[in-house]
Amino acid sequence: MSVALESSAALREHAGPAWDALLTHEFPVRLAAATLPEESFRFYVAQNLLYLPEYARVIAFAAARSADGAGLGEHTESLVNIVSTEIPQNRRLLEAISAIAPEPTPGEDVKAPATVAYTSWLLSIAATGSTLDIAAAILPCAWSYGDIAEGLVRDAADHPVYTEWLGFFASADYRAVVDRQRAAFDAELAEQDDAGRARLADIFLMGCRLEKSFWGQGLAMQHWDDVAG
Amino acid sequence: MSVALESSAALREHAGPAWDALLTHEFPVRLAAATLPEESFRFYVAQNLLYLPEYARVIAFAAARSADGAGLGEHTESLVNIVSTEIPQNRRLLEAISAIAPEPTPGEDVKAPATVAYTSWLLSIAATGSTLDIAAAILPCAWSYGDIAEGLVRDAADHPVYTEWLGFFASADYRAVVDRQRAAFDAELAEQDDAGRARLADIFLMGCRLEKSFWGQGLAMQHWDDVAG
Amino acid sequence: MSVALESSAALREHAGPAWDALLTHEFPVRLAAATLPEESFRFYVAQNLLYLPEYARVIAFAAARSADGAGLGEHTESLVNIVSTEIPQNRRLLEAISAIAPEPTPGEDVKAPATVAYTSWLLSIAATGSTLDIAAAILPCAWSYGDIAEGLVRDAADHPVYTEWLGFFASADYRAVVDRQRAAFDAELAEQDDAGRARLADIFLMGCRLEKSFWGQGLAMQHWDDVAG
Amino acid sequence: MSVALESSAALREHAGPAWDALLTHEFPVRLAAATLPEESFRFYVAQNLLYLPEYARVIAFAAARSADGAGLGEHTESLVNIVSTEIPQNRRLLEAISAIAPEPTPGEDVKAPATVAYTSWLLSIAATGSTLDIAAAILPCAWSYGDIAEGLVRDAADHPVYTEWLGFFASADYRAVVDRQRAAFDAELAEQDDAGRARLADIFLMGCRLEKSFWGQGLAMQHWDDVAG
Repeated sequence: MSVALESSAALREHAGPAWDALLTHEFPVRLAAATLPEESFRFYVAQNLLYLPEYARVIAFAAARSADGAGLGEHTESLVNIVSTEIPQNRRLLEAISAIAPEPTPGEDVKAPATVAYTSWLLSIAATGSTLDIAAAILPCAWSYGDIAEGLVRDAADHPVYTEWLGFFASADYRAVVDRQRAAFDAELAEQDDAGRARLADIFLMGCRLEKSFWGQGLAMQHWDDVAG
Repeated sequence: MSVALESSAALREHAGPAWDALLTHEFPVRLAAATLPEESFRFYVAQNLLYLPEYARVIAFAAARSADGAGLGEHTESLVNIVSTEIPQNRRLLEAISAIAPEPTPGEDVKAPATVAYTSWLLSIAATGSTLDIAAAILPCAWSYGDIAEGLVRDAADHPVYTEWLGFFASADYRAVVDRQRAAFDAELAEQDDAGRARLADIFLMGCRLEKSFWGQGLAMQHWDDVAG
Repeated sequence: MSVALESSAALREHAGPAWDALLTHEFPVRLAAATLPEESFRFYVAQNLLYLPEYARVIAFAAARSADGAGLGEHTESLVNIVSTEIPQNRRLLEAISAIAPEPTPGEDVKAPATVAYTSWLLSIAATGSTLDIAAAILPCAWSYGDIAEGLVRDAADHPVYTEWLGFFASADYRAVVDRQRAAFDAELAEQDDAGRARLADIFLMGCRLEKSFWGQGLAMQHWDDVAG
Repeated sequence: MSVALESSAALREHAGPAWDALLTHEFPVRLAAATLPEESFRFYVAQNLLYLPEYARVIAFAAARSADGAGLGEHTESLVNIVSTEIPQNRRLLEAISAIAPEPTPGEDVKAPATVAYTSWLLSIAATGSTLDIAAAILPCAWSYGDIAEGLVRDAADHPVYTEWLGFFASADYRAVVDRQRAAFDAELAEQDDAGRARLADIFLMGCRLEKSFWGQGLAMQHWDDVAG
């Protein structure tokens, strides 16, 4: 393969079908069509609430290992955002969807397989990699959510919960957050040699795969065999 | 549940069906019957060779964070054993099975889903937990291999590769290794309070689940959708 | 020695002369008397500005390795406080003292010996220890500042910079912060066995020693031989 | 300064007086002259035995975070060497010197100030830096010992313990170890950009300073004020 891997756009191209599978995944497509079972969305949000504290830990590792005061400040800001904004937002989202789908899925409040795989992988990068490795690992999630929502929001059907969710990730504000994240990543990527870029491209690709698993897990409400009973 | 969780035996009981599923898994059962497709075994060993270096890293973290000279010495010994004995052994095993199943499965030499999940989870424990957490995480693998092999070796059919594999894990030497590992773990477990034991039991249970996924991945030669093509 | 080590008060008693040396150290005593050379205070604050980002990294490690959401939230709050309040406060303090002592000491803006030792030791605890180890390591600093200031504030001489500094650490607000920190630590200490308490007492003692070195370094404006020139 | 920092030789030149101070330090000079007090050497060796396990932990972190199988293998080999060869060697050395200087210095078996600073600093690099950062941090110790011994061995006076010590570090075998370590480091250094090299040069410089402190501590048998009594 001869993609030069010099930018996040090149990493996305390198990820190829693993990225494309996110944009056309049945979970968000049915969410936009308002035909996604509320039970699935509830399971997804419940698992997201188990994902986010681990994600916060990954950012805390990045803060701990940041090279300078600027990096320390940015990662601290991101960490606060997850703890003080994203987690409470997702708690409210769980309440909203639970009003429609009041029956809990068994084990929704313990990490299901794709949640374990995804959060563990992020933490393993945080434990063994550099802060740039961490940036490559978390980029697919943030970025794909924006692209997915933008692609679906125009023709979306109304839904008492899904509409707001879709609107958030399709907003100009969210786009600006992703753009800043990509620009910061691209600047550091440009300073890497070929081997470094290839490793970051592999990390990005793995992030795409694990994103897809997480959507699929939500749709099917998958759990460990000994939990699902 | 009212298991007291005071020993590795109690943790195994707590793990219940997740442990039992290992003893009766189709992969080792068919391996003993010499009806396991050699392609599956080859895929399993190839993935094991991607698992072992990460496992070694986990032990290196345990060495780095060991509380005293005794712990440092034991983890160093374990680390050398993985790097100098287990990995070369598995390389020879891959050669042996490749002589029978010469066709590589696409992507056998990059981490497949269960390999990513299992190794990442071990590393995430190493990154965020204590050395006792690490001990709980690695125990299901070592221990279940011995129990599986002991349960199957007596009635096993002959096979040019499988027989030796089964014999190794059913040996008195291997049993002694596991017994020492359990005794060391039990001694530390006894000093934990209830909350600590419950956490260790959860770690042990998760190790059992990920072991099962690894067997299943080998049997079905599962890979990422974008690799399996 | 037969101190039971069941509380932070017992740890302080265990630290004995290493703790007492902080309360009577020439640096804060002369600061309160307004006879501390401004050059020394400037050097101390400049080194404190090199200390604080490393301290923030230690708290970020604690956040990353916190056992639950409560711990994650508390450490995140502490981290933000350091980055958004303490560091800017110390920058203003450096400006204020620099107006009086305008001549920089050579190398004041690179870590001097006691700064390297203290920050490295905190990070080494963060890298190899538990979150409770971290709590024991950072307690002497926070606590002794309050006790030092309370002991000196009543009879302190007026000074354009020192008075406010002393007032801050002698305030009821600061006392409340320390009391909360001690209460949280004491609750966890109570759950440890004797070996655990002894280790935490040793960590606390080392924190006292390194605090003393940091005061001494400020007073003498000590630097590496190859920097001091 | 305009040193290009492209090799370990350039880093040594960058370290300047901090490196030179090692070659002419009173401790090894008097050791070679056989006029070093045996009490000082005993204290130095006793502290070295507290240094080495932490050094081993640093190498274990490097193994845990090594990028590939080759790095994992090399760091594992180094780790075994420390645990199985260097530590026992130093135990024998302590026995030999204790036969001549039978009186223990108070606190010789707990980490003294320079031991805490040096080992903590190494661990802080291991916790927050890359494996190349670790390589830069440990290089001054290994390398300077060889250069010191080579410079002093020819005119050294006979001594029942010092002579063998000097001979070991002045040997061709030891030189070969250092040469391999430098060659591996130089190869990786060459791939760094200017900012990376400058950071590595700063790490190397700090290693030299801490080496010097460790020699000085041995000579003066320095301890914490509350230990030295």
